[in-house]
Amino acid sequence: MDPKNRLNDDEKKVNSNISRVRSRPHRLTDSYVTLAHGAGGKASAALVEQVFYPAFDNDILAQGGDSGVVDASLIGEITGRIAMSTDSYVVNPIEFPGGTIGELAVNGTVNDIAVAGGQPKVITAAFVLEEGLDIATLTRIVKSMREAADTAGVTIIAGDTKVVPKGACDRLYITTAGIGVIPEGRDFGYHRVEEGDRIICSGPIADHGMAVMMARGDLAMTAPIQSDTRAVNALVDAVCAAAPDTRWMRDATRGGLATVMNELARGSGKGVALDDGAIRVRELTRGACDVLGIDPLYVANEGTFTAVVPAEQADAAVAALHSAGADQAGVIGRIVAEPAESVVLVTGFGGTRMVDMLVGDPLPRIC
Amino acid sequence: MDPKNRLNDDEKKVNSNISRVRSRPHRLTDSYVTLAHGAGGKASAALVEQVFYPAFDNDILAQGGDSGVVDASLIGEITGRIAMSTDSYVVNPIEFPGGTIGELAVNGTVNDIAVAGGQPKVITAAFVLEEGLDIATLTRIVKSMREAADTAGVTIIAGDTKVVPKGACDRLYITTAGIGVIPEGRDFGYHRVEEGDRIICSGPIADHGMAVMMARGDLAMTAPIQSDTRAVNALVDAVCAAAPDTRWMRDATRGGLATVMNELARGSGKGVALDDGAIRVRELTRGACDVLGIDPLYVANEGTFTAVVPAEQADAAVAALHSAGADQAGVIGRIVAEPAESVVLVTGFGGTRMVDMLVGDPLPRIC
Repeated sequence: MDPKNRLNDDEKKVNSNISRVRSRPHRLTDSYVTLAHGAGGKASAALVEQVFYPAFDNDILAQGGDSGVVDASLIGEITGRIAMSTDSYVVNPIEFPGGTIGELAVNGTVNDIAVAGGQPKVITAAFVLEEGLDIATLTRIVKSMREAADTAGVTIIAGDTKVVPKGACDRLYITTAGIGVIPEGRDFGYHRVEEGDRIICSGPIADHGMAVMMARGDLAMTAPIQSDTRAVNALVDAVCAAAPDTRWMRDATRGGLATVMNELARGSGKGVALDDGAIRVRELTRGACDVLGIDPLYVANEGTFTAVVPAEQADAAVAALHSAGADQAGVIGRIVAEPAESVVLVTGFGGTRMVDMLVGDPLPRIC
Repeated sequence: MDPKNRLNDDEKKVNSNISRVRSRPHRLTDSYVTLAHGAGGKASAALVEQVFYPAFDNDILAQGGDSGVVDASLIGEITGRIAMSTDSYVVNPIEFPGGTIGELAVNGTVNDIAVAGGQPKVITAAFVLEEGLDIATLTRIVKSMREAADTAGVTIIAGDTKVVPKGACDRLYITTAGIGVIPEGRDFGYHRVEEGDRIICSGPIADHGMAVMMARGDLAMTAPIQSDTRAVNALVDAVCAAAPDTRWMRDATRGGLATVMNELARGSGKGVALDDGAIRVRELTRGACDVLGIDPLYVANEGTFTAVVPAEQADAAVAALHSAGADQAGVIGRIVAEPAESVVLVTGFGGTRMVDMLVGDPLPRIC
């Protein structure tokens, strides 16, 4: 029998036999995440409807329907060169002075796009949740993501949640991805870096890594250090307006300023000479680094970026950063011909030392 | 002293004092993932250069520079309406008959975009790796991702790796995100679903979930069931060409066909009447479901999608799927007025039963 015909035959029965069941919104009755929240069924739908939708609420997300999993969302019309980025966040603890794993996840992807020259527009967020995570914590973190997105001017348009059994993840991991549109004429790249260019840093370094270390509470010291997590896209736009020939940018995240500068040296084939005295480190942060024997040059930042600009546009770029609120921004070095592909630190006494990339991992799970 | 001046003064010293150190490609000497591979330094760079770049090798990724973390990539010019999606994959085991977590991660995001109407172009991949994961396994999985991407016609343009200590993740989790361009005139949505429309399923159901269950090896039975993981974007294009007024599509992943059909009913405000006899389940898969007391309607698929098409275009759509290789595609039901927002299954004997959304989680970590 043709299936269509059979359904035809049965249609009347279907419509008469079954009492009308109007589905209500799915209710979230649990205080803790369970494996059922990751199964794609009713519990998943409840989690999405009660935790994620209220926080991320926006027109594009609403198009996705009311499924347990938020599927692909339509962004709408986009024209131009596009930058896309992704990052997973596994920071421990998930809440720390100055931020949460959620803010970090939003700001991190916003910043990766911004330093690539893109103006971030939309991001996605995928969650791996450990069975037993309390819903109140999850709700706080999701709320902090919405706030971070609003501050950065981006919309969270699609997402996903998976739940793994207790012990197969540490509370929650978040992966964000995003896209941004690159304004006409903006072209950042190693190939544009020239001898004599200045290197700008948007603020003091090492705050994020040290804040997270302190928050772990397994040190014999505490200090009220705040993470620098923030979206830098507005600062990037300020630099570009003031220094239209900006060559290259990068945020100094994992591996710290030292690693990013080594990438710059290696990528451009030129040398990087850093001025030790011009690199800002807050007093508390420097003190904590000193006590722990950690070089702040290798400590992760989450809202501090470096830019290479032509020498003649450096003052304007720094002034623009100051005006935009980054009052500790400054020139921290320059591009030199030799030693090529290397980073040297010029100390206050006129000495120099090589600054290598990070080797090993002094601070695991910092972001 | 002005930092720029100081650097000026020292420039000669920098250039003369330090011997030229040309950096070599970073060498990966480990057989296992260590925390250092996630720190953003030399070990991270080695992992990316020796494992990820060779597999994902493409022009866009190469622009990202040779950093330990692959930062934002420039996609290039894109014009039109865009669909974006993300999904995390936590499947256990990470290799199973018919696929790997990597193929799943590529195909899953490709499929989410495709069933939203987008033609997927580029994807990103973010990895959370457990300390101790062997590099050989990682290399195999990354290779399988590249092959899946090639088959689907998408490019992996950006990525990220994080490493967590042993016990804070189960081997590896992968999150993909992607974007696709929606062809002119394509408009999928619940609002377009009309009474009398036909529901098409692209193939037999329940293979993926049962294949993964079997692969876990904790059952007293084995059966050579293969996951259905595959990219469906070419099939979606075939349906759209044959049935230009296609209303809606969704892949039947977590929660299975039953859950997706409930989402359709709820989202459209209409009823879904499924023909039990028209829903294909392979013999081996049905046998395994029977033995384990699992309803195949609730078992996850990873390469099978459903589409709502106008009744008069249904035969053409099915024929197009058959021509494109989906030889078990067929009409499995229709949209009815009542019972609204509900799914009923019409059995071979003319009986009907309500099909609810998945409650609980029969098969955790299936994708």
